[in-house]
Amino acid sequence: MTINYATPAPEKLFPVAGVRLGVAEANIRKANRRDLALLALEPGATVAGVFTRNRFCAAPVHVCREHLSGGREIRALVINTGIANAGSGDEGLRAAKETCAAAGRLLGVGAEQVLPFSTGVILEPLPVDRIAAALPRCRDDLAPDRWHAAAHAIMTTDTVAKAASRKIDIDGRTITVTGMSKGAGMIHPNMATMLGFIATDAGVAAPLLSALARETADESFNCITVDGDTSTNDSFILIATGKSGVVFGDASSPGYARLREAIAGVALELAQGMVRDGEGATKFITVAVEGGRDREECRAVGFAIGHSPLVKTAFFASDPNLGRILAAIGYAPVAALDVDKIRVWLGSGGEEVLVAERGGRAATYREEDGVRVMRAEEITVRVDLGRGPASARIYTCDLSCDYVKINADYRS
Amino acid sequence: MTINYATPAPEKLFPVAGVRLGVAEANIRKANRRDLALLALEPGATVAGVFTRNRFCAAPVHVCREHLSGGREIRALVINTGIANAGSGDEGLRAAKETCAAAGRLLGVGAEQVLPFSTGVILEPLPVDRIAAALPRCRDDLAPDRWHAAAHAIMTTDTVAKAASRKIDIDGRTITVTGMSKGAGMIHPNMATMLGFIATDAGVAAPLLSALARETADESFNCITVDGDTSTNDSFILIATGKSGVVFGDASSPGYARLREAIAGVALELAQGMVRDGEGATKFITVAVEGGRDREECRAVGFAIGHSPLVKTAFFASDPNLGRILAAIGYAPVAALDVDKIRVWLGSGGEEVLVAERGGRAATYREEDGVRVMRAEEITVRVDLGRGPASARIYTCDLSCDYVKINADYRS
Repeated sequence: MTINYATPAPEKLFPVAGVRLGVAEANIRKANRRDLALLALEPGATVAGVFTRNRFCAAPVHVCREHLSGGREIRALVINTGIANAGSGDEGLRAAKETCAAAGRLLGVGAEQVLPFSTGVILEPLPVDRIAAALPRCRDDLAPDRWHAAAHAIMTTDTVAKAASRKIDIDGRTITVTGMSKGAGMIHPNMATMLGFIATDAGVAAPLLSALARETADESFNCITVDGDTSTNDSFILIATGKSGVVFGDASSPGYARLREAIAGVALELAQGMVRDGEGATKFITVAVEGGRDREECRAVGFAIGHSPLVKTAFFASDPNLGRILAAIGYAPVAALDVDKIRVWLGSGGEEVLVAERGGRAATYREEDGVRVMRAEEITVRVDLGRGPASARIYTCDLSCDYVKINADYRS
Repeated sequence: MTINYATPAPEKLFPVAGVRLGVAEANIRKANRRDLALLALEPGATVAGVFTRNRFCAAPVHVCREHLSGGREIRALVINTGIANAGSGDEGLRAAKETCAAAGRLLGVGAEQVLPFSTGVILEPLPVDRIAAALPRCRDDLAPDRWHAAAHAIMTTDTVAKAASRKIDIDGRTITVTGMSKGAGMIHPNMATMLGFIATDAGVAAPLLSALARETADESFNCITVDGDTSTNDSFILIATGKSGVVFGDASSPGYARLREAIAGVALELAQGMVRDGEGATKFITVAVEGGRDREECRAVGFAIGHSPLVKTAFFASDPNLGRILAAIGYAPVAALDVDKIRVWLGSGGEEVLVAERGGRAATYREEDGVRVMRAEEITVRVDLGRGPASARIYTCDLSCDYVKINADYRS
């Protein structure tokens, strides 16, 4: 099931000057599917990455970090699906590096100028020979308008490919931002991982791009939760090719706020697409927490609600179960939270119902109103903590019988 | 479903001198069921409590804390099922206090000498008049041998009543420890709560009993997780009547270690009984973490594994899914964890299989061995962090389709 999401048509995904993409069938785990993507970058691009904090991080994550900090210009990305190359020890590191070397040879660049990404089952060896054999076909397929094909080639348990694109105009010059991602269930550590790739033809100085990548991830991929688990391979890469001729040296550069907004918009669309494609999901839930002292405590409350299996099963049942929501708020790790000041609304389709205030059910609340808003496919839980100016939004989905079935049956 | 657990027969639950119990039908939420229990304590008992840390704590929890710190001897406990009296504001506090006053009048003691406990649905008013009307029938039913009946009267979604009892001999004198609890799904905030009550006829000085209650909870009720949610009403009460004549003034008193062990044993049996009766549970899982720097980090790793929906669905499927277990260890909040030192075993029925070492699958591991141990109803995951002398055990169950069904259907 996918909640109100469909992959954009190929022509809606604008090419980004300086980025070419190609895909191929490498037969990594399943036959007859495109499971390998190559991104080739023209010289002059800056590249920044944000990676999983899971300590069992996969071999390609180690190699990405090494190559990004190595000081040489990044010229290519290789992404395979089927096998995650995680929990694979020294052999896995060697396989990731050999993948880079093979792509580098093809493109006439160094192995350390290539970033590797893998997603799929954990604890199985990466068939680097099959990847090397397929890379020439990826290279022959390289073209600027292959985002749609690439988004399909990186899927695992995704039921739809996720991609997004937009153009903005800054001082009469057009800047393009296009991205793709995979992930269904944030996260699914076996058929692992969230991967996200966004490119722009703006030029962005390396230090600024690093900050922008971190900020973008924090406001998009780090705001979603399907089951609360974080994966071994999660990676987000931001690429700025500079081919538009518009260059941003620092955060005060004119128009930078608009570039940032466009990138954030693409990232949020990708992140929400992953929730909408969450395993077994039937409802898309926005948890909007406001009135906090800082953003972190708003996020803590949002994730307490968004992670609670009891809240998520209640949403699956379209049950406005206030007790479960209040209990989740009550155990969120927030110091000195005064429950008497908290107000909670449930909303959908433009309607919003005050359900809780002063530590209990709102005096005006009628169960039939709660039931009506809960029937929708897209629901917002709004929480006012009543103690400050900060806010945050978390996106999640419900917990259905199908989630259990998908995750219990996956390896059998 | 209940995993290898049955309520002990009434004659296996030894009376505790100084405690009498009585039950009645109060028609609180459902007709024709005993839903009210009264415990009457002889003068001279000490009583200590440990309560939920959820900030939306229920009215009876507030009243318990007030009465326990008020300095007057506790002489009675009133426990109702059906309605939790949580999220009920000032009205709820009044209802809890009126319950105490009604019990106090019956027994000739002050309202502040009575502790109230409620469990059931949240956000509905407690019918204190029906409780007051039924209390005389509880009083008429009071007897030392009614632990079995009381354990049944406090159930909510429990499929079996939980009780445990043992006797120890200290210097030729017999000491009895008997307890009961309710909870299925730790925790189920709608039909809410874990409640636990343990009484001994040992005498224990008040400060020592407070410490003992905290320690006991930490090693039993605080070591279990079904869905990771904590409730608004969770309470554990430890009663020491002193009627055996054996008195413990401080932790160095002769025989105190044996009393502590007996109480811990009863508490662990009750706590494990709740996991075995976990909603939809088909497997009982012990997560034993050792080699940590301190107990807290062992618990953090244990709970990361025990809370992961992906791990729990894999157990439901009898799937030895190492990737999910390793990923959960990898995101546990433990500083500077070196994954290369971690070893993981899966065990059941006296057999133990080394499944992971040095950051990946163990060289000796064969999938068929993992599959064999995972088929059992009782499984141990043993994790050696390889960095210290501390250890901890967490108890949990699997996540099944029935869990979702029970929690999605509950209010409909």
